[in-house]
Amino acid sequence: MPSPPAAVAACRLAARRLLGELPEGLVLVGCSGGTDSLALASVVAFEVDKTGRPAGAVVVDHGLQDGSAEVADRAAAQCRGLGLDPVVVRRVEVAREHPGGPEDAARDARHAALVAEAERLEAVAVLLAHTRDDQAEQVLLGLARGSGARSLAGMPPRRGLLARPFLAVTRADTAAVCAHDGLDPWQDPHNADPAYARVRARGAMTVLEEALGPGIRDALARSADRLRADADALDQLAATWLAQQAEVPTSLPAHALASQPEAVRTRVLRLAALAAGAPSGALTAAHVLATDRLLTHWRGQGPVSLPGHLVAARTPGRAGRIMIGPADRVE
Amino acid sequence: MPSPPAAVAACRLAARRLLGELPEGLVLVGCSGGTDSLALASVVAFEVDKTGRPAGAVVVDHGLQDGSAEVADRAAAQCRGLGLDPVVVRRVEVAREHPGGPEDAARDARHAALVAEAERLEAVAVLLAHTRDDQAEQVLLGLARGSGARSLAGMPPRRGLLARPFLAVTRADTAAVCAHDGLDPWQDPHNADPAYARVRARGAMTVLEEALGPGIRDALARSADRLRADADALDQLAATWLAQQAEVPTSLPAHALASQPEAVRTRVLRLAALAAGAPSGALTAAHVLATDRLLTHWRGQGPVSLPGHLVAARTPGRAGRIMIGPADRVE
Repeated sequence: MPSPPAAVAACRLAARRLLGELPEGLVLVGCSGGTDSLALASVVAFEVDKTGRPAGAVVVDHGLQDGSAEVADRAAAQCRGLGLDPVVVRRVEVAREHPGGPEDAARDARHAALVAEAERLEAVAVLLAHTRDDQAEQVLLGLARGSGARSLAGMPPRRGLLARPFLAVTRADTAAVCAHDGLDPWQDPHNADPAYARVRARGAMTVLEEALGPGIRDALARSADRLRADADALDQLAATWLAQQAEVPTSLPAHALASQPEAVRTRVLRLAALAAGAPSGALTAAHVLATDRLLTHWRGQGPVSLPGHLVAARTPGRAGRIMIGPADRVE
Repeated sequence: MPSPPAAVAACRLAARRLLGELPEGLVLVGCSGGTDSLALASVVAFEVDKTGRPAGAVVVDHGLQDGSAEVADRAAAQCRGLGLDPVVVRRVEVAREHPGGPEDAARDARHAALVAEAERLEAVAVLLAHTRDDQAEQVLLGLARGSGARSLAGMPPRRGLLARPFLAVTRADTAAVCAHDGLDPWQDPHNADPAYARVRARGAMTVLEEALGPGIRDALARSADRLRADADALDQLAATWLAQQAEVPTSLPAHALASQPEAVRTRVLRLAALAAGAPSGALTAAHVLATDRLLTHWRGQGPVSLPGHLVAARTPGRAGRIMIGPADRVE
């Protein structure tokens, strides 16, 4: 048997590596019928054929386009044709209002459905087909928000039941798998619609490549890995500080917190505001930095307004505390 | 007297804020004669006129273009015309070989000359005219390298004697100052030469703005501020861990280091490699991550090669150490 093209070998290796890290049991592929996820279904089917591990697929029908049920049924049939079993189609309701916009709403609904199916079928993981190109675009979209390491950290390779083996390969690799394996992927018309931020990010990436060199996608994906590690460490430090130093997370000892580095202080203040009920989508870095000035530029000033009809105020004196809560209770 | 246009007021305020943070004494403006630094010279001259603080300028002649001495003399004359005193021209030698390339070589030579003049003249600070646009471009260039928070953290507002009051204003603001104050800035032909990464980054920024929205420059600059705070905190944690846990920085207790979060571990390993003599320009994240696998994926494997003819090796046993040094001494 001749060896497969390098791109196909890379995709199979990526799947094999991840499967080797998982406990025994059923794995599911989240499949839309598009190039990336059809390639993932194909290489997973190829790899489990050697080990006997059960592997199925979940196709999510978002119901957002005419004919979405037919697209989903076709993807499910392709997955069955690859030997995956069970293959289920889940219709979801996408929330009309979402702080992150319609793309985030669709993603949240999709992830919830995938995790629910995994739990129902007692699967050990759901594999998502995001590639290094998707990761680079995700970082670019995070940059447009400007809100720190977590929003630049891209998509994690593993979180809970969700796993992304294809972050190590490219979109060109997954297209090569579909061609090699004789698969006819669905071309989502949304992928060419500049109304979507992700589509615009894809176009911008091409220009960035011309300006800054062909390594920009890899560089963005590498940056995401480094920044995710940074964010994990600092988020953990902030949570530990909060658990150790504050009996309730909405009343913080000002002097002790002021001695922490800015990266920890601002994360503690963000956690405290969330604990007080601030809506996470509305709580910006600017709110947190304004609250931080109660620590770094304390001159007896009044409270800082936070979203959710909350305020952050500092009580006077050497034992002063930062209190975060409803305006009528804190002031 | 009518109030100045908003852009002029913003530039003056930015200079006034910084001057208010500095101790008494001479301040120097680093001036090339270009739009940004001529605007800075002008607003600093305007502000110190009210307070009596002495303010001068240093013009660096890099000697890289024909006629650079004339450009420098003209900039110096413009600074003197604004009332700055002393105004000095420093000719520097730019290194022909530099790990970061010719732009980094010119910057290093310029900064060294500015700091040397500041020390000679006993100035309290040298003010540089980098704007928010420069900061955004700096982050974009850092992204192209893909090497973590520090390279995305942009330029600090203050470091040692160098200070950047104009990070709060835009290139459009500084152009407005030159127009308002009747100044004729030098147009550096290099600013239109796509051989320079910074010029290409400037072009890419325009495209990113079209794709991701007009807020991208601000977002990149905000990201830089957040990531600089993160990098400061994590660099400090790593340095503290190293000082407390290792008698010499090139011999690290493996078990203790393995229990640190990845963001701290990798920084400790980087510091250790630098302490062993690895050239910082050649030491990449990939080298550090390969060394980290001696902690996270320890199966008795052999040493990891590092630049500068060094290796990192783990000694066996429960009291195992990560040793970094010349290959013939560590293996």
